[in-house]
Amino acid sequence: MATDIAEQPAGFARLLEPAQADPIARVAAAIAERRPRHVVFTARGTSDHAALYAAYLTEIRLGLPAGLASPSTITLFGARPDLSDALVVGVSQSGGSPDLAEVLRVARSAGALTLAVTNAPDSPLVEVAELAVDVAAGHERAVAATKTYTAELLALLMLVEGIRAGDGALPAAERAALDALPELAAATLADRTPEELAPRYRFAAQLVTTGRGYAYPTAREAALKLMETSYLPALAFSGADLLHGPLAMTDPDVPVLAVVGSGPGGRAMGEVLPRLAERGADLVAVGSAAVPGAATRLAVPEVDERYAPLLDILPLQRLALALALARGEDPDAPRGLKKVTATM
Amino acid sequence: MATDIAEQPAGFARLLEPAQADPIARVAAAIAERRPRHVVFTARGTSDHAALYAAYLTEIRLGLPAGLASPSTITLFGARPDLSDALVVGVSQSGGSPDLAEVLRVARSAGALTLAVTNAPDSPLVEVAELAVDVAAGHERAVAATKTYTAELLALLMLVEGIRAGDGALPAAERAALDALPELAAATLADRTPEELAPRYRFAAQLVTTGRGYAYPTAREAALKLMETSYLPALAFSGADLLHGPLAMTDPDVPVLAVVGSGPGGRAMGEVLPRLAERGADLVAVGSAAVPGAATRLAVPEVDERYAPLLDILPLQRLALALALARGEDPDAPRGLKKVTATM
Repeated sequence: MATDIAEQPAGFARLLEPAQADPIARVAAAIAERRPRHVVFTARGTSDHAALYAAYLTEIRLGLPAGLASPSTITLFGARPDLSDALVVGVSQSGGSPDLAEVLRVARSAGALTLAVTNAPDSPLVEVAELAVDVAAGHERAVAATKTYTAELLALLMLVEGIRAGDGALPAAERAALDALPELAAATLADRTPEELAPRYRFAAQLVTTGRGYAYPTAREAALKLMETSYLPALAFSGADLLHGPLAMTDPDVPVLAVVGSGPGGRAMGEVLPRLAERGADLVAVGSAAVPGAATRLAVPEVDERYAPLLDILPLQRLALALALARGEDPDAPRGLKKVTATM
Repeated sequence: MATDIAEQPAGFARLLEPAQADPIARVAAAIAERRPRHVVFTARGTSDHAALYAAYLTEIRLGLPAGLASPSTITLFGARPDLSDALVVGVSQSGGSPDLAEVLRVARSAGALTLAVTNAPDSPLVEVAELAVDVAAGHERAVAATKTYTAELLALLMLVEGIRAGDGALPAAERAALDALPELAAATLADRTPEELAPRYRFAAQLVTTGRGYAYPTAREAALKLMETSYLPALAFSGADLLHGPLAMTDPDVPVLAVVGSGPGGRAMGEVLPRLAERGADLVAVGSAAVPGAATRLAVPEVDERYAPLLDILPLQRLALALALARGEDPDAPRGLKKVTATM
């Protein structure tokens, strides 16, 4: 898992090279030409969080309604929704889960434009989809996905910005911002704070993660990593949803990892953080914004919030790994899990 | 909270009377006439789970793509998605959260057909929407929503079936199935098993809830009730997502409440339940299907899975209440929460 995590800056750099970026640009141009009216994402587990990030990007950057589909309506209940105006995107590192392939098969036969985003160009999901993007993260050793997650994030970001550009070619400013990411990721990973923090949470009974906007997928993914590797119940909430009920559960014994950037999502956490402080929560601030009252901080270089998910997750992956080791667990072989999960 | 819970059979009966049912049928007919191409739901907290149920209904019963929108893309990031083909539905018991009203305002000005589903006919959400449905649950005393949740479920079910019928009038078989619900709800609430179960989970450190298809919103809502009233971390997963990672977290110390009905969703839990048994999970079966190996069971009368969410949640509300009392908490005044939560 440590090796997978360390490879992420190189993974970003690889995706940005013409060998990978050009095919993504061609897929983006093909989608732009077809002018879908809305976008439906379908994914499971870690890839579901990458899909959630892409749904935010789609609504904000493309002005297209976007949602995450429950595969079960199609695979279990036989729903055959009219998807003739839709782009349907399956996101899966293995491309191997039968339910996602079935959703794309049904969507394609219903007239949808279909796209598979995977780390496995020869997988069933790619076979069934009209278009495919290879996130090119290389073989992932650990069961808990790390480098395939951030590769999915970057590939989906390049795709959305390529669709926005129309011809798939990224504007110079966008391209410059993306080209800075490998170095920023390396700088983020050079920080040893996650390992220093692990002993503090060694005996925590549970954790809460939270964020708003682009930071919410990061909160969800961090919670999943903590559950998979440290077997800690970790509850992820959008900052707004936290106030609608689960806030009652927080107290000084529940560490809260709050992902707070320097844009609209981070600023909106301003209505959440004081409520957490009132409840005496032990607050860890993750991201580029300083948070008054936070007990500790996982600092990340400041970038536009749109790019922050590619960096903010890095110290949280490290924290999940360090916490698993501190708790005597084996993060490379989580109990009860397989690398490819087949569900219908 | 006990009084609110007990009023649910009467609430179902009230919604089915012409005074409430006829206006819902007129709204359904108006929507059917406008022929939306897809449906976007927006909601927070408990109402988000009612919206999730309605999204399943929309895809399965209407063959229309449906999704849950993140209000923040519009309220924080200024997204202005093209919603001209969409029905946009805000679900909120209070109708008072500014973010939902803003989403409906933006959606309406973007050409969407907008609908407010609330328990507050004079609320800002109703004011901003073109159409409105009153779930008529009466004043809810407790902060934790119970009777407004099931009233939202039934109103959304009546609405979807009315749209499916085209003119809003329910087919006789559908109407008969709905008319049976008040009595079935009363029979479900007469069972004292939830109170008997509470001592068993008095010292649980966390809980997992799970279900597939129509049962997944029930799992989500049960988890929220447990968090709000008993301050227990309760993690809800679709049965499929549970296998994609969080399964690692389960062990004999983590009770799992599995909502298992007698239809496709319940049958699909057949790939989940043995994996939970392998991990030694303490399993509580909730619903109409018997589950081999379950330590305990909250039985609910057998109905089509489509109606089961209106019954399955009842013993779970009771369990949340009983568990809160067993833990010495005050379920009528959860710490840190208000009845109307305003977020942007």
